[in-house]
Amino acid sequence: MCAASQLDKSTLEEGPGFAPRFDAAGLIVCVTLEAGTREVLMVAYMNSEALAKTIETGIVYYWSRSRKALWRKGDTSGQVQKLLALRVDCDQDALLLEVEVGGDGNACHTGRKSCFYRKLEPDGRTLAHLAK
Amino acid sequence: MCAASQLDKSTLEEGPGFAPRFDAAGLIVCVTLEAGTREVLMVAYMNSEALAKTIETGIVYYWSRSRKALWRKGDTSGQVQKLLALRVDCDQDALLLEVEVGGDGNACHTGRKSCFYRKLEPDGRTLAHLAK
Repeated sequence: MCAASQLDKSTLEEGPGFAPRFDAAGLIVCVTLEAGTREVLMVAYMNSEALAKTIETGIVYYWSRSRKALWRKGDTSGQVQKLLALRVDCDQDALLLEVEVGGDGNACHTGRKSCFYRKLEPDGRTLAHLAK
Repeated sequence: MCAASQLDKSTLEEGPGFAPRFDAAGLIVCVTLEAGTREVLMVAYMNSEALAKTIETGIVYYWSRSRKALWRKGDTSGQVQKLLALRVDCDQDALLLEVEVGGDGNACHTGRKSCFYRKLEPDGRTLAHLAK
């Protein structure tokens, strides 16, 4: 990895260096897709340790902002995420993970496959479109 | 919309109320998909005004963190995003937008369709897999 702060815009955007930009809290946002279906499963955060362990082990670690702890996804639920690909966006402040999910294949703690189970309806209410 | 801080966990996660949770900076993260292909185009942020204008007009507005300004995506590039669906995650601190893109159909300022054009390779470098 490179230190993002030392790179100019063109190198950051077009160079081959992986230079993830962590925010003031030391975190980077991650969008996680199921590799087979391309469905967006969840949005979560990594700190540098979570990212390093994810790359090293091929199993996805996040940083839990609520528990303030490193979090190997699936440790208690069995919904372990195997990393198949990791993409980074143009200014390197967001990651896109493609994963294969273990256990029952779900990613959401509510018992659904994806955390994005509610859609905003024209009347301003949200409606769940994914079953538990 | 409801005030998220007034809702208990079960209501926030299972109730019909749309109660987006903005962070300390007043922002919520948005993942934007191309509706037809389900491709992830970009990750950006909204403040409450951007979200309200997006819902009201059906055209996507973000908050530019670098320019510190409301930003109607596509105003200068023509890459206007028409909102087809808006989903919210379990704890309502992330949004998923499904959009139809105007102009040349791209979303990234580098001239690519998606901002996630680079993949991390086993040697630690990133490789662009989307052409400009």
